[in-house]
Amino acid sequence: MFEEGARLKAIHGADNVFDFSLGNPDIEPPEAFKQQLREVAENPEPGLHAYMPNTGYARTRQAVAEFLTREQETEITENEVIMTCGAAGGLNIILKAVLDPGDEVITPAPYFVEYGFYADNHGGKLVAVPTRPDFTLDIGAIETAVTEKTRAVIINSPNNPTGQVYSEENLRDLGKVLSEKSRAHGRTIYLISDEPYRKIVYDDIRVPSVFSCYADSAVATSYSKDLSVPGERIGFAAVNPAALGKQKLLEAMALANRILGFVNAPALMQRVVTGLQGIHVAIPEYDRKRRLLCDGLAERGYSFTRPAGAFYLFPQAPVKDDVAFVQALQEELILAVPGSGFGAPGYFRLSYCVPDKTITAAMPGFEQAMEKFR
Amino acid sequence: MFEEGARLKAIHGADNVFDFSLGNPDIEPPEAFKQQLREVAENPEPGLHAYMPNTGYARTRQAVAEFLTREQETEITENEVIMTCGAAGGLNIILKAVLDPGDEVITPAPYFVEYGFYADNHGGKLVAVPTRPDFTLDIGAIETAVTEKTRAVIINSPNNPTGQVYSEENLRDLGKVLSEKSRAHGRTIYLISDEPYRKIVYDDIRVPSVFSCYADSAVATSYSKDLSVPGERIGFAAVNPAALGKQKLLEAMALANRILGFVNAPALMQRVVTGLQGIHVAIPEYDRKRRLLCDGLAERGYSFTRPAGAFYLFPQAPVKDDVAFVQALQEELILAVPGSGFGAPGYFRLSYCVPDKTITAAMPGFEQAMEKFR
Repeated sequence: MFEEGARLKAIHGADNVFDFSLGNPDIEPPEAFKQQLREVAENPEPGLHAYMPNTGYARTRQAVAEFLTREQETEITENEVIMTCGAAGGLNIILKAVLDPGDEVITPAPYFVEYGFYADNHGGKLVAVPTRPDFTLDIGAIETAVTEKTRAVIINSPNNPTGQVYSEENLRDLGKVLSEKSRAHGRTIYLISDEPYRKIVYDDIRVPSVFSCYADSAVATSYSKDLSVPGERIGFAAVNPAALGKQKLLEAMALANRILGFVNAPALMQRVVTGLQGIHVAIPEYDRKRRLLCDGLAERGYSFTRPAGAFYLFPQAPVKDDVAFVQALQEELILAVPGSGFGAPGYFRLSYCVPDKTITAAMPGFEQAMEKFR
Repeated sequence: MFEEGARLKAIHGADNVFDFSLGNPDIEPPEAFKQQLREVAENPEPGLHAYMPNTGYARTRQAVAEFLTREQETEITENEVIMTCGAAGGLNIILKAVLDPGDEVITPAPYFVEYGFYADNHGGKLVAVPTRPDFTLDIGAIETAVTEKTRAVIINSPNNPTGQVYSEENLRDLGKVLSEKSRAHGRTIYLISDEPYRKIVYDDIRVPSVFSCYADSAVATSYSKDLSVPGERIGFAAVNPAALGKQKLLEAMALANRILGFVNAPALMQRVVTGLQGIHVAIPEYDRKRRLLCDGLAERGYSFTRPAGAFYLFPQAPVKDDVAFVQALQEELILAVPGSGFGAPGYFRLSYCVPDKTITAAMPGFEQAMEKFR
């Protein structure tokens, strides 16, 4: 998509192409981030860029653990935290640690397309199960999908691509089913929570703690969206202190961090984020864009579930063939991603981490495309 | 080793433990690096920390390609370069791109222990073949080891752990054998050159170009040792412009960079290294340490091949059991790595990227340990 956007912008001019295809934050990092970076760059301690243990700096992990203790409502120490190359790195080290060849990984659809690759990287197989019409977890569907080969369930809340946030009740129900099924099959099913959008939520919604809802759980997340630094590949993975075989799991993850070639999360960025726990970009900025886009599309007859978090909208295409509709949008120089790319045909994804004027200026195009299929 | 070193230092005091176990450069980054970092941090362009194409910034890849054209004596463009999370990231994306399950990857022993994991990550199997007594390539041994399952050969020159640098003749002979065997088996055997120590060579030795010696080749390297920044995970992979199916290979590598969870090399560090092509730490510093260690150990009766590059010495243990000898060294508070960890029992590795005084102060301990086995 990156390259296709660049191509169209080269032909038509950047202002005439409305690129809603990428989750690349357009808000600049918070001042606190820039200041931390300047301070570290101006006063480089000896060994600032050297190797450290594969799990990351103890001081950084302590800061993360302290913050996470509040966020996950569970006492977490630095021993349960591993600094990673973004959430993608975190998910891969968790999957490498828990999967045996042929193991199944369940995820609710629509889902982030990379999960299929991540499972496959480590010999696993992704099994997508439908969500309810409002994109919340369909516990019955997950229960039915569990087999004796199921080793993990990946959830992503706030969700990419739907913007849905799972409620505590929804997560507790999931935890109950996973406990029962783990017992029934005599093997632990891990719940892996991919949470890079946790800080980006609207209308005072609270994202519940996964650790409180299920013991055998792990979190993977990043500072990419909190601090608008996705190119820096800095994040972490954390294991629930109550998880069975926690120590072995953490050791396997640390080894995976090393042998998959990450080695460690980038040193400088570890130092920078240490003092930035809980800091994030101004959410009202994204909220304003969300309202602009939702209101504009609703007026033009689009149907969608209003996102509670993240910066994605996942409307229904006015025709069954979402790829055809995305092509119709592209004729209006609007770039979107077909829902089939997320295991949900009939929908399309719009990222609204774009300038306000991209949203307003694209409205005639959205209207035109809708007209074509009326 | 990292943790064991820390433990012993906590007990005996940092000055009384002689840690030769880690390849963690003790020389600080060059002033030019620090200055570039300050400049980028002080004048952050918009989007400085955003996503870019998975292959990296075009400007960075252009700078790398220009430098590499001279170094590899082959016209290289930015299209043949992918920025990676260090050489480890580079090796993993190359292996992910070329290996099918069950494929064999040959490497001359002693070898960097991670190669076994890297091959295994992607369904491959590492096959170690002996080198000649002076640790140069034994072409006959490699020829014999090639089977119809061989997909790649990984070499590392200057070598970790031996410090050996392969001559142009040695590489040309290897190229000839790989061409013949690729033809005979009707499948390309890739030569993967892991070159993070290329800039660290002594006595005016020139490291020959692998690209000139064999067409189906790729290089993985990093700035970790050039700039003393191993914690930052910044490097690149490059494919020989003459390689068969070059375009497909590069596309597979770019996809691998994304789906293995690296996504892209850290953004800030890509910007920083752009203007630092060919810059490296002062080699005479390492040369002085090399001489100190070699002279000191020679005086005390140790046998070894004098390293031509890198910052490792790989002496013979005075007994067959290298693990026992490393334990004897540890009783003298000297930390080393047994050769068996590199597929070469009977030897041990010393990293001399340590303060001079660590080398001189460890000499009585080296003497004591040697005495025990006389």
